[in-house]
This record gives sequence, C-alpha cells and structure tokens, in this order.
Amino acid sequence: MFPEVDEIGPDKPVEKCGVVSIFSRYEHAAPYIYYCLRALQHRGQEAAGIASYSREREDIVFEKGLGLVGEVFSPDRLEKLPGNSGIGHVYYSIALSVPENAQPYVFHTASGTIALAHNGILTNAEELKVRLKKKGHGYYSGSEEESVSYLISDSMLAGKSMISAIKSALSELDGSYAFSFMVNDHVFAARDPMGIRPLCLGELPDGLGYVAASESVALDAIGAKHIRDVRPGELVELTEDGIKSYQLFERGEIAHCFLEYVYFARADSVIDGREAYRSRMRIGWRLAKESPVSADVIVPVPDSGRAHATGFSRGSGIKLEEGLMKNRYVARTFIMPDQHLRDISVGEKINPVKSIVRGKRVVLVDDSIIRGTTMKRIVKKLRDAGAKEVHVRIGSPPVIAPCYLGIDMTERGQFVAHGRTVEEIRKIIGADSLAYISVEGLMEALKWEENQMCLGCVTGEYPIKIKGEKTRLQRTLQDY
Amino acid sequence: MFPEVDEIGPDKPVEKCGVVSIFSRYEHAAPYIYYCLRALQHRGQEAAGIASYSREREDIVFEKGLGLVGEVFSPDRLEKLPGNSGIGHVYYSIALSVPENAQPYVFHTASGTIALAHNGILTNAEELKVRLKKKGHGYYSGSEEESVSYLISDSMLAGKSMISAIKSALSELDGSYAFSFMVNDHVFAARDPMGIRPLCLGELPDGLGYVAASESVALDAIGAKHIRDVRPGELVELTEDGIKSYQLFERGEIAHCFLEYVYFARADSVIDGREAYRSRMRIGWRLAKESPVSADVIVPVPDSGRAHATGFSRGSGIKLEEGLMKNRYVARTFIMPDQHLRDISVGEKINPVKSIVRGKRVVLVDDSIIRGTTMKRIVKKLRDAGAKEVHVRIGSPPVIAPCYLGIDMTERGQFVAHGRTVEEIRKIIGADSLAYISVEGLMEALKWEENQMCLGCVTGEYPIKIKGEKTRLQRTLQDY
Amino acid sequence: MFPEVDEIGPDKPVEKCGVVSIFSRYEHAAPYIYYCLRALQHRGQEAAGIASYSREREDIVFEKGLGLVGEVFSPDRLEKLPGNSGIGHVYYSIALSVPENAQPYVFHTASGTIALAHNGILTNAEELKVRLKKKGHGYYSGSEEESVSYLISDSMLAGKSMISAIKSALSELDGSYAFSFMVNDHVFAARDPMGIRPLCLGELPDGLGYVAASESVALDAIGAKHIRDVRPGELVELTEDGIKSYQLFERGEIAHCFLEYVYFARADSVIDGREAYRSRMRIGWRLAKESPVSADVIVPVPDSGRAHATGFSRGSGIKLEEGLMKNRYVARTFIMPDQHLRDISVGEKINPVKSIVRGKRVVLVDDSIIRGTTMKRIVKKLRDAGAKEVHVRIGSPPVIAPCYLGIDMTERGQFVAHGRTVEEIRKIIGADSLAYISVEGLMEALKWEENQMCLGCVTGEYPIKIKGEKTRLQRTLQDY
Amino acid sequence: MFPEVDEIGPDKPVEKCGVVSIFSRYEHAAPYIYYCLRALQHRGQEAAGIASYSREREDIVFEKGLGLVGEVFSPDRLEKLPGNSGIGHVYYSIALSVPENAQPYVFHTASGTIALAHNGILTNAEELKVRLKKKGHGYYSGSEEESVSYLISDSMLAGKSMISAIKSALSELDGSYAFSFMVNDHVFAARDPMGIRPLCLGELPDGLGYVAASESVALDAIGAKHIRDVRPGELVELTEDGIKSYQLFERGEIAHCFLEYVYFARADSVIDGREAYRSRMRIGWRLAKESPVSADVIVPVPDSGRAHATGFSRGSGIKLEEGLMKNRYVARTFIMPDQHLRDISVGEKINPVKSIVRGKRVVLVDDSIIRGTTMKRIVKKLRDAGAKEVHVRIGSPPVIAPCYLGIDMTERGQFVAHGRTVEEIRKIIGADSLAYISVEGLMEALKWEENQMCLGCVTGEYPIKIKGEKTRLQRTLQDY
Repeated sequence: MFPEVDEIGPDKPVEKCGVVSIFSRYEHAAPYIYYCLRALQHRGQEAAGIASYSREREDIVFEKGLGLVGEVFSPDRLEKLPGNSGIGHVYYSIALSVPENAQPYVFHTASGTIALAHNGILTNAEELKVRLKKKGHGYYSGSEEESVSYLISDSMLAGKSMISAIKSALSELDGSYAFSFMVNDHVFAARDPMGIRPLCLGELPDGLGYVAASESVALDAIGAKHIRDVRPGELVELTEDGIKSYQLFERGEIAHCFLEYVYFARADSVIDGREAYRSRMRIGWRLAKESPVSADVIVPVPDSGRAHATGFSRGSGIKLEEGLMKNRYVARTFIMPDQHLRDISVGEKINPVKSIVRGKRVVLVDDSIIRGTTMKRIVKKLRDAGAKEVHVRIGSPPVIAPCYLGIDMTERGQFVAHGRTVEEIRKIIGADSLAYISVEGLMEALKWEENQMCLGCVTGEYPIKIKGEKTRLQRTLQDY
Repeated sequence: MFPEVDEIGPDKPVEKCGVVSIFSRYEHAAPYIYYCLRALQHRGQEAAGIASYSREREDIVFEKGLGLVGEVFSPDRLEKLPGNSGIGHVYYSIALSVPENAQPYVFHTASGTIALAHNGILTNAEELKVRLKKKGHGYYSGSEEESVSYLISDSMLAGKSMISAIKSALSELDGSYAFSFMVNDHVFAARDPMGIRPLCLGELPDGLGYVAASESVALDAIGAKHIRDVRPGELVELTEDGIKSYQLFERGEIAHCFLEYVYFARADSVIDGREAYRSRMRIGWRLAKESPVSADVIVPVPDSGRAHATGFSRGSGIKLEEGLMKNRYVARTFIMPDQHLRDISVGEKINPVKSIVRGKRVVLVDDSIIRGTTMKRIVKKLRDAGAKEVHVRIGSPPVIAPCYLGIDMTERGQFVAHGRTVEEIRKIIGADSLAYISVEGLMEALKWEENQMCLGCVTGEYPIKIKGEKTRLQRTLQDY
Repeated sequence: MFPEVDEIGPDKPVEKCGVVSIFSRYEHAAPYIYYCLRALQHRGQEAAGIASYSREREDIVFEKGLGLVGEVFSPDRLEKLPGNSGIGHVYYSIALSVPENAQPYVFHTASGTIALAHNGILTNAEELKVRLKKKGHGYYSGSEEESVSYLISDSMLAGKSMISAIKSALSELDGSYAFSFMVNDHVFAARDPMGIRPLCLGELPDGLGYVAASESVALDAIGAKHIRDVRPGELVELTEDGIKSYQLFERGEIAHCFLEYVYFARADSVIDGREAYRSRMRIGWRLAKESPVSADVIVPVPDSGRAHATGFSRGSGIKLEEGLMKNRYVARTFIMPDQHLRDISVGEKINPVKSIVRGKRVVLVDDSIIRGTTMKRIVKKLRDAGAKEVHVRIGSPPVIAPCYLGIDMTERGQFVAHGRTVEEIRKIIGADSLAYISVEGLMEALKWEENQMCLGCVTGEYPIKIKGEKTRLQRTLQDY
Repeated sequence: MFPEVDEIGPDKPVEKCGVVSIFSRYEHAAPYIYYCLRALQHRGQEAAGIASYSREREDIVFEKGLGLVGEVFSPDRLEKLPGNSGIGHVYYSIALSVPENAQPYVFHTASGTIALAHNGILTNAEELKVRLKKKGHGYYSGSEEESVSYLISDSMLAGKSMISAIKSALSELDGSYAFSFMVNDHVFAARDPMGIRPLCLGELPDGLGYVAASESVALDAIGAKHIRDVRPGELVELTEDGIKSYQLFERGEIAHCFLEYVYFARADSVIDGREAYRSRMRIGWRLAKESPVSADVIVPVPDSGRAHATGFSRGSGIKLEEGLMKNRYVARTFIMPDQHLRDISVGEKINPVKSIVRGKRVVLVDDSIIRGTTMKRIVKKLRDAGAKEVHVRIGSPPVIAPCYLGIDMTERGQFVAHGRTVEEIRKIIGADSLAYISVEGLMEALKWEENQMCLGCVTGEYPIKIKGEKTRLQRTLQDY
C-alpha cells in the first residue's frame, strides 16, 4: 500500500537553512540582518537567530528562538543587538526543535568569542566529534557547528593567526557548507570547495558596507548590489576596507546543487550567474521539446511549477492557464478522526478551476516528485473536475537517492522513483502520461556541465565520497 | 504628501465575512463546517465560529474565537459541537476585535434558540435598533444580528409560524445580506432581495444532506455538488426531505457586487453562474482591446492580478511572465524606527525578477487600486530593476465612492481616484501610462447588465437608497 | 469507598464573586476599582471585569476576561476605561468559564446602558427568565443578570423614573444579592432585603468620592474610610452630592451568611460591624470551652484555621505552634498516572513540622469540614510525623445541607457530615476526638441572634423559601 | 531620598537554587524528582529542569524551561524523561532569564555525558574559566557549571577513574556548592568542604532507593526517610547497593549559612540536625530576653516572621496576634502612572487587622531587614490603623555586607544597615524602638558556634578568602 504523504513528511524536498553576514557603517546592523533573513525565510521556518558585536560589552551578543523571523524578533528584541556588524540564520529541522538548537551558535574561547551559522551538512561530522571529544572537548548540542568552532579556537590557541586558524579549521571539513561567522568583531563568510551550497556577495547602498547571504534576494531586500558569488573554497572577510578574499583551496571540481535552481531558491534569486526563474523557464521549454504531448492547456502546480509551466507553454505553443487554486490559509492541519474527513483534509490545499480543466486534455507541470502522494491527489482532483486527459511533466529527473549534503531527503524508501520505472510511477499517480526531464536536458537548460553539478539525488553518484554510495568520479571514469 | 499605506490600512478592498449552513446525515456536521470555513478563510481572518444543534441538550451549542479557523478550532473543540446540522462564520473586522463579537450570535428566546451568521451590511440597522429598543429589547453587542434575531422571535412570539416569522423579519431589512441561521434544529440560509452578497447551494456527497455557503469553493472543499445559487430574495431551509425554498420577495431588480468577480471571491469560485477566474480573464482581454500598449512583457501583480494579466496577454498577444515574486512569509510587520528601514519594510513583500524586466517595456496588471501607495511602490521597484517603461492596466474602473453594503472601503478620502483624473493618478503612481477598464467593458466581460450589478464604488450610484448618495435609479432615469 | 477530594472538587466552601462601585472625582476611577478588586480576589479567581462611564463616548465602556485581576488588566487595558465612575467584579465559577460569562454584564436599552455586577444567587431566576422571555426578551448568556437588566429597562421604558424602575425591578427578585450597577453615568449598589451577602460603604480619601464593595478590605486597599454597611434592602446611589439612600424594603428579618465570618471574608474585613478575625478568635475560644481536651499543642490548619486556633489557645491555655507548613507554590496539580504518585500529589500542599508534633498530643483546629478528605489526610500526616494523639476542633457546626444563596456547595452527597454522626465522621477522618462548635456557641461568638443569620447549610433551614427545603420560619415556630 | 524598594529589587534576601539527586528502583524517577522540586520551589522560581538516564538511548536526556516546576513540567513532558535515576534543579536569577540558562547543564564528552545542577557560587569561577579556556575549552553559557564539567571530563580523559576524576575536579573549586550530578548512569551529590549550602540524604519508601536534596522537605514530599545530611566535603554516589560515601576533603572548619535557618529554608526543614522552625522560635525567645519591651501585642510580619514572633511571645509573655493580613493573590505588580496609585500599589500586599492594633503598643517581629523600605511601610500602616507604639524586633543581626556564596545580596549600597547605626535605621523605618538579635544570641539560639557558621553578611568577615574582604580567620586570630 502506498503511504499517505501527510502522515510521513513533506512531499517536496526541504531546504535546510539560510545564512547572512553583514559588515556595515550603519549604527545597528541587526535590523538589516532581520530583513535579509525574512527574504531567506523559505529556506527555513523553524527557528531564527542573529548575533552582533557589541563594542560596549566588547563581546558578541545574540538572540534566537523558535518560529518565523517575524515571530522571533520584535523591535525590542532587535534593540538588544547593538553593533554595526553581525550574522544571522534561519533554520529548518524536521526533528522537534528546541530553542537551544537555533543558530548562530556562540562559544566563548580563550581566543575570543566565535559565532557560527551554517547551511549545509558536514559528511565527516561524526569523525570530527569523536576526535575533538578525545582531545577533551565537551559538546552541548552535539552539533557540527560546535566542532567547527573548536577547530578554529584550537588553532588560534596553538598560536596561528585568525585567518590561518580558520583556513586550518575549514580544511578539516568534508561536505557542504555556506558559513556566516564571526570571531570577535571580525565578520566572515565561507563556501565549501565545491560550491555545493550557494552564497553571494553584495555591497550595501551608498558604499556603507558589505553583505554575504545564501541568496541574492536577501541583498535585494535591503537594497544591496549583487557583486558576485563567493567562490567555491573561498573565505571572505567583510571589513571597513572592503571584502578581503582568501582562496583557501585550489580551484578544483565544482558541484553546485541543481535543486537550488529547480526548486529551493526563490525564483527571483540569481545563483552563480544563473537566475532561478529563467533556469526553470528553460527547463520547461526543453521538457516540452523532449516529451511533447497533444493537449489543450498547460496547468502549473502552484506555486512551485509556475515557471517551468511557463517555459513548457512557450516550448509547446499550448496556452497556460492557472487551473489550480491554492488555499493560502491552510497552515496547521489536524489529523482528523475518520477517513472521509482525512481525505477532505489532504485535499483542501488545492482546488481546480473547473472552466479551465473541464473536458480538456491537461498538461500538469511541476518541478519535482518525491513521494508522489500529492501528485496522485492532484491528478485525481483534475479528473474529478472533468479533465479528459492528465499528462504530467516534471522539471527534474526522477529523485532516486538520498541527499547527504543539505536537503532533507534521507530515506530511499520515501522516493516513489526508487526502484520503479517511469511507467510504474505513472500508474501510481494515475496520469495518462508522465515524463521527467533528462539529465542532459537539465544540464542544457541550466547551462552547467554535468561535472559542475551535484546530481547525487537523481544519479546516485555524489561529488564527495560518501560511505556506501558511488562517487561522481567513478562515473566520470567509466562513462566519459 | 501622499499617505503611507501601511500606516493607515490595507491597499486592497477587504471583504467582510463568509457563511455556511449545513444539514446532514453525518453524525457530526461540525468538521464539515470547519472545512467549508477554511475554504472561505479569504473572506475573513479575524474570527471564526460554529454553532450546531445538540439533540442531547435539546439546544444550540456554539464555539467561537479570534483567529484563523485552524487556530480557533482544535479537534477537541470541534467535539464540543455535536449534532448533524449547524452553521459557521468567518469574520473580518478592521476594529480591534473581542471574542464576544465573533459570530454566530446565539440568543435564547421564548420561541427557542436562534443562531445567526451574517455577511453583508444592513443599511437600516440604526433605525431597527432604535425601534426594537423602544419595544423593550436590550442589546448586548449592539450588532444588527441582534436586531434580526429579535425580529424573528417577536414575530414567532406573536403567534406566527417559524417561516412566516422569518419572512416578516427579513422584510424589515434594507441592505445586503447572506444569512446562515438556525431556529432550534431548523437550518436556514437567505439572500437579500437584490442578491448583492453571494450565496450558493450544494448537495453533500452520496445524498447525505445539503449545504449553503458564500462561495462554491466551500462546497468543493467537502466534495459537495454545486446545485445552484440561492436566488435574490430567497429563503431556503435545509431539511431531511430536501431544500425547501421560499421566495420571500418578488423577483425585482438585482445588484450583484461586481468586486466579488474582480477581487474577493477565490478565482475557482462560481458565482451566479459565472466563474471568477474566467471573468477576470475576460476583463483582461477586454482591457487589452480598450487600452492597448506597445510592450515587451505582461507582468501580473501576484496573486491578485494573475488572471487579469493572463487575459491581457491573450488579448494583446504579448507574452506574460511572472516578473514579480511575493515573499509569502511576511505576515506581521513592525513599524521600524528610521525612514530607511521603513522603506525596506514596505517593499519586502514584492521583488522583481530582474531577467524579466531589465530593459523591457512592462505592462503591470492588477485588479484594482484603492489608495495607490502599493502600486506606486511596485512601479518604482520595476524601474529600479531596469524596466524601460512601466504601463499600468487595472481590471476595474476607478474606485471613487464608499461601499455601504459589505466591503471595508468607507472613506472617500482614502481613494486615490477620488477627485482625481486618471492622468493625475498616473503621475502619483509614476507610471508611463495608466488605464482602467471602462464600466461598459467590465459589464461585457462579466456578462451582466449594468442594472444587474452593484457598481456603487465606481459610479457613486447605489442600487439601494443610501442617505446622501445617489441611487442607481436616478442614473437609470437620466442616462438610459 | 470514600471519594478522593481533589478529583471531585474543593474541600472548602467556595465563595462566588465580589463587587465594587465607585463614584469619584479622580480623573480615572478604573485603577482604583482595580485595586479594590485585587483586595477582593479571594472571592473569585476565575474572571474579572470593570465597566466605567466615558463622557467622551457618552456611554459605558467595559473590559473583562478570564484570570486573576492582575492577569486580566494591564495598565494599557485600564487606560481603555476612562471616566470618574465605574463598577467592578471578580468571578468564581466551577464550570469551565468562557470570557463571555465574566461580569459586569453590559446591555444597551432604549432607557440607556445598564452595567451590572452581582454577588449572590436569585432563587427565582428561572421563573423570571420564563416570564421575561414570554414578554419577548432574548437571552444571550442566560444569566440572571440579564433578567435584572430587563426588569430595570422595562420599567424605565414604561415611564418610571430611574429610581422607581430600579425599586420595581429589585422587588421582583428573590434570593441573595449584592449588586454594583450603573445606569448610564449613575452608579449604584444594592443589597438584598435580608442582607445575606455583605456590602459596605466607604468614603474616598480627601472627600474625593464614594465606594461600595463586598468587603471593607477593598476600602482599605485604596485608603477609603469605612463609613457603614449597606443596609439590608437598601439601594444607594453614589453621587457628587454624597450617598443617596433608598430603603427599598421594610426592614424585616435579616439573615447574614455566617460563613462570611467563619471562612470567606478576609480576616481583616469588618462585616456588619463585626471583624472576621475577632469573630474567629471568639469561636476558637468558645470551642475550647465547649469541647476541651487535654493536649500539648494547638496546631492550626494554615491559613484557614489560624485565627480560630489562636482563640482556642487562649481559651484552653495550651500553647499554639505552627505545626503545619503550607507549600505556597502548589497551584496547578496534574492527575498523576499511578496511585503512589497520586498520594504524593494530594499531600504536597501541607507538611508537618516534626519538632512540634512528634510525641505530642495535638489539637488540630480548622474553620470547617466539607468533604473531609483533606482533614483525613492531615490527620494521617500528623500521625506519620509522630503525633501521639490528634484531636480535631472545627470552628463551624457540621455542614449538612446545600447553599442556595451564593456559596458553591450544592450537593448533599458531597458533605461528609450529611447523614453521619460526629462519631462516624471522627472515624472517617481518623482523629482521636472530633468536636464542632455548636450553633449556640457560634451565635454567642459572632454576637448575632440565630434569627439574624443564614444558617441553612448547618441547620437545613433557610431564611428564604426554597423548594423542597424547610424554611427558618418553620423552625422558629416549632422550636422557640 | 530613600529609594523605593519595589523599583530596585526584593526587600528580602533571595536564595539561589535547589537541587535533587535520585537513584530508585521506580520505573520512572522523573515524577519523584518533580515532587521534590515542587517542595524546593521556594529556593528558586525562575526555571526548572530534570535530567534522567535513558537505558534505551544509552544517554542522559533532559527537559528544562522558564517558570515554576508545575508550569515547566506537564505529565507529557515528564514522560520524555525515562529512567530510574536522575537529577533536578530549581533556579533563581535576578537577571532576565533565557531557557538556555536553566539547569541541569548537560555536556557530551569523550568520557560520557555529564549532567550538573548546582546551588551555590564558586569564588574562583573566573580563574577556572580562564585556565580552562587556555586549555582549549569553549564556553557556551559561560557558567561555572561548564567549568566543573570540563574539570571532571579532563580528568577522566587523562585516565583517572570516575571517582578520582570527580575528586580531582571538586578539589579545584573554591566557594560554596551543593551539587546534584550524573556521569552517564551514575548519580551523585556533593557538598562543599565547609558545608555552606545545605544538602541532605534520604531513603525512598520500602527501600526502593536513595535521594539527596537541598532540604529535607523534598524528602518529606515523596515519603522518603531523612537519614542524615551530606557531610561538608563529602561526595555520595546513590547506587543499587546503597549510598557510597567518599570524604573528599579532610574534615576542617565548617561554615553553614545562618540565613538558611533564619529565612531561606522552609520552616519544616531540618538542616544539619537543627529544624528551621525551632531555630526561629529560639531566636525569637532570645530576642525577647535581649531586647525586651513593654507592649500589648506581638504581631508577626506574615509569613516570614511568624516563627520568630511565636518565640518572642513565649519569651516575653506578651500574646501574639495575627495583626497583619497578606493578600496572597498579588503576584504581578505594574508600575502605576501617578504617585497616589503607586502608594496604593506598594501597600496592597499587607493590611492590618484593626481590632488587634488599634490603641495598642505593638511589637512587630520579622526575620531580617535588607533595604528597609517594606518595614517602613508596614510601620506606617500600623500607625495609620491606630497602633499607639510600634516596636520592631528582627531575628537576625543587621545585614551590612554582601553575600558571595549563594544569596542574592550583592551591593553594600542596598543595605539600610550599611554605614548606619541602629538608631539611624529606627528613624528611617519610623519605629518607636528597633532591636536586632546579637550575633552571640543568634549563635546560642541556633546551637552552633560562631566559627561553624558563615556570618559574612552580618559581620563582613567570610569563612573563605574573598578579594577585598576580611576572612573569618583574621577575626578568629584577633578576637578569640
């Protein structure tokens, strides 16, 4: 029996976290960090935090809590964060959260205070923890952020300069990261050597300082100019004298997460030179060429499939209509006592516009399918509303493998595409036809080479060595 | 100086309330009412309430409170509402709300218990109250719903049958109304003689009963079949033996609120035979013909202008792109201390997709302009993002007069179009060109005659006599 | 099996409500009402409310809510209550409360706005409601306060003057009441013809106005001088020109509630010329004479038995020691899963001081026993702590009958003394000896005559006709 | 001008924290820890926490939060704490608390998980932190509890056994402590070498395990038998095989905090063999002999002065009466806008019983005076109520110096007795006479020698070296 999605988790890949670093000549940086975090809210809604450097107290202060940015921070609470520089974080966690787990993590060491905010996952987190514990370090939260902090402080304590210490610490890390962090009043941002997670750089209006953030929409939010992206393996310090850059690692292979383009990033974000909206449009266009279909109307799944659907419409010449309406007020859902009420409950988020679908051959376009249960439900709704045919087109290849590098998709068993053919999936979701974009088509649309992307979740081959999984390199050797 | 919108109120017309009546053979009707109310949540987010008839207590019981439907009602609270029939209400109020003001209002009288939920405004509310007070009635909330309840109970007490008493009570009312109400275990719905506010009828799945609701999306939510709309001046009782209909008033002039089609109703609702989505599409198409413009791209204001923009794109042949992204997490906004932060704050809801607008001649499409401040801000954002020209097209005629019949637009001074020419408004919002749809074009698009619509807010002439205002009749006499 | 007390209700009689009326020359009366209500908080902790007359709005405004006075009213909320006169209420209810049920009740009528706060119970509430409903009145809360309000407004509407209308309304009421009420900007207080519930009058400092309140401690709280008590059957209006008095009913038999002296009133209150503390002392003294015992130490049940115990110590010459300590932080108690934990839970409020009771013959003094379960537990605790003997002395006669006039003791089955001899009760609570004060001794101590008191709960004979119960009159005829 | 007390802090010394350790054969120890903490609630109301060892997860789990024990822990939350052993903590903090600061602190180290709850203050906390930071440790909260945890884990990591490591860690600490702590599934309690803070040992009913707690009332609460106190310098492990004792430090000078007897401990607690209630009684008795006065009545300040007053009554032969009533509902107090209302606000907690004080010579007895503002106010209230004379007698010597060892009295400037003669203080509080108990009298009453007590706050000479202060030793050398 196919599991019911709402009982076991979200039917979309879920992003983990967003980060912000600011050095400014504003009297108080915290409100600007606040607006950046609001613009990154789609990357994590569980918790939010801001740390800033207080000259008066000569230390880093911080405030954090559970909830949306606007719930955690009142103007009063922002006022507790003086100082012209700071960092911020929005957090996603599928585990029941406690306020202690919110970021930034702030530690006081002999080398000063370290505040750290992280987007990504370290693949050697356990090894690091075991090693650092053996060295005598105690863990409060058990988080990998504690490890990074200890690596930096140990190196500084051993006599290294701040930059050398950071370089040394980061060189110990495997996996993905975009870090916003501070050591005392120094503000940094750093990106993993393969550039898996995004991180961009901006200049504040009127040359009043610099900002690094997970996505360019955070820059837009405060009127900052997008200068460039932080380079894979680059550490930047935001200072009064400009952005100081340290290329910590030789420029080697890169592996940007393709799902940022396809789903995570806000459509108006520009990542590593490609705008998410335009990327999605091109995917849709290419999908229309790869898997054409005779139909009357293109209907996007709101809001995730809209850009892809627009592209599909252009590519196919079939008109797009907003054939599905979303109930934007359905946030909390209770588990209802009887089956009939549960069926109502799972369907209340989406409703067809009957005039658009009745008697029509509909192409339903979305960005991805994970569990498949929502898609199955939507297909049924369209048929109930009178659609003659329902053809499903998906703007990413089938997700068949877990993500170990920052996305909340961890169990193969949860993927409808795991161990199934496209035809088998089509039957499960009840569509008349089903097509995913090919990896080649995707690459063409994104304008990246396959060996510049992390495609682990759709190929099962990862850019980084992961125990029990194939690495991209193997593939490269065999296939190219 | 042009006032800042976020300080003084919403920049969109705001609907007041939605209602639901259910008679069912379900053991408990309350969860079904709950889902109907969730589907009507866009009509009011301030408070919610449900009343049902408990056979055990031989009385109507009710629960209500401040907040969204999903916040007010937990499964535990729904369980306090036994019975197979009931009514529900979602409430909008610009005044600071108290739980006491939530509906349904429930009164215990010698003729039984009366529960009442109302969408609309009675124009003779004050006269009724004065008259009923003189008769000895005391008012707890001072609401017009108390008056209606007293009218019904007085008539029943005077010996009239329930239906006669209701008929007699409703005949005393002037103004607009869609009522869901109960007298003991009898469930009713009624619509004002001109059909100003919407109200539709459905049949529960498997013939298990009947439902009346403000919009058909509430019927969709619980799988009910949309049978027809409640007729202007019709009272219906939902019973075991079917829907009993009483045409209380001679079928005369009608006056459906055109803003339901243009903005209030969810796009997937069908009202009096016309679907909101298709109506908006046709408006956009007609607007493209009335006020064409040479441009590169059509951009809707999300989410309100999307259907109109789709129509405009069809009518003009210019492609539509989602050039504005909405931050869906910005609910609560604080007033920030300095001007720069306030500018950031008011702009954070909308961000342009740069690839779409840079260097382009943009047609920005929305459904309406009330104060104009948001539109002004969006035009500026588009220009900042590089738009070469910004042409604004609006899917309703200029709003120049208050609504007395159920919409929260009460002060002429708040309308940017009040006492200004279109050219003057264009200058205020900073557009290269501005056009509204004409009343004639609107009528053609909606497929209604001008004298079948309430157009008070755009013509200043009302279908019902309102002190100090012109009535539609005068206009009819003079202009036709 | 003897029922566990904490599962079925409190083991002390519980008072219902306290009231306050103020006319002042202060700019804002509400903060003074607030402090009066805080001093009356022991009379009701469920809800609180204040109404005041706003000259600006020419109407009564009110604020009320669930919780302690200090929880319901913030300074901000008090500021919403302008005006130099007003009334207040604290509420006790064993039923799950809703904010709507808080008092004062405020009704708007043709004769003006009526606000009403009530301590007491009307024994003809149902008859009144039926009669008023038949007259056409609808009930929102179904409360007797609505009835009183309708009686006043009907009479005023019929052309009577305000005072005549109030007199006429009050003459319809049977039962007990202390009312604080307003008709528009007129502030009143009234007491039932037998003076069952207390009500006293004070003058504000510096002659700035007048105050009526349930207990004199409310006067103390704001520095007001206690002038006298409101007389049984008296209506007072607090005005700029002084206290206007109207003796509505012939002075006849009176029936003050003796439990106010014994338990309800704060010990520092003076009621009808007798101070509660001194009354309790005299009861204890008299009890020592009536039921002497050879013992080593007198131990009060804190805090209720302390004054009685002091008197008992004086009367017996045996020293008093605070042999039981109370955990003042135990407010909320959860029902624990297993029996051992439940036993711990019910005992955690009281703990013996071992040095005082070990090896001693202890006299345990309290004011009353209702269910007996708490007393049983304390006796056991004393024995466990090493007490050689435990003698229980109670400062009221056995409670054997319900209260119909304002105290929350409604079921005969809940009284341990119902249908049991003193010896049987002694066995249940496990004491070596048990004695209650006699009715005669109680009267002597209180300095009232038996026919001036309501002793219904200890004699089963009531000062007012109550269906199915004996009245005091019968007793008077037979026994005197 | 003498400062208003309620604006600047409490007018009583405030205790910091209480601790509990339990090893049991109960399936779940957490509910028992919960009841122990409720009994210790008077030692800290700001936060509460419990840690327990989960066999299933093979780790320590914990729950903590802000508020009273009964607010932090619901039955659901207690169920998240499986395991038959654990520790608990109640916390007092004058600083605005954050949930992160609640205890127990739990750290994960290479030697296992350490959970720690602390009552007391380490006087070398800063030195320890600097030293441990230099060794490479990072601090999350900056608390001294982190230091203790690092000391233990460092020693264990260096190869010491658990007990040796704990011994080594505790030997590094200066100051006062009662610790409840766990290392993995081992449960410990430890007391500082001078026994400054209290800690007692008990046996669970039916031999089901052992408990250590700050006060014996925690043992009473769960029916445990008080065996003995933890000795100064003793470490105990609670195990299946009994209490294992390790005398870590040579038995030397001891220094019990005298304020535990005088004020902090609940009167029914027995500390180091002396019951608090009896100690207070004896103080009162001795005070009556030292500073007799001709008077009519002894009145205690409720509830703190009651036991002292009882002793004074015995010693003087003057009768005691409860002449002051406390409003037990006044928890939250707002700062009121005008002076008159502020005067009302500060006085509402206490009200005289007029019959007791009118025309009388009153002896007012309390345990201590810190700021003096409350005492001043009470004296005035008694005079306003008609007292002819008011003589104040205080059950502790004048507090003239800060506490560095666990009590929240840190600023000399806040003590009314700092730099003032008794006569000067008398004038400030407005009494007819004022006397404090002498140090000698206090010692006699407590049955301890002066060099067995910590009297720092009343002599300015401390049992432990404190920078800038005299030590008891100096005094000992000079004075004995």
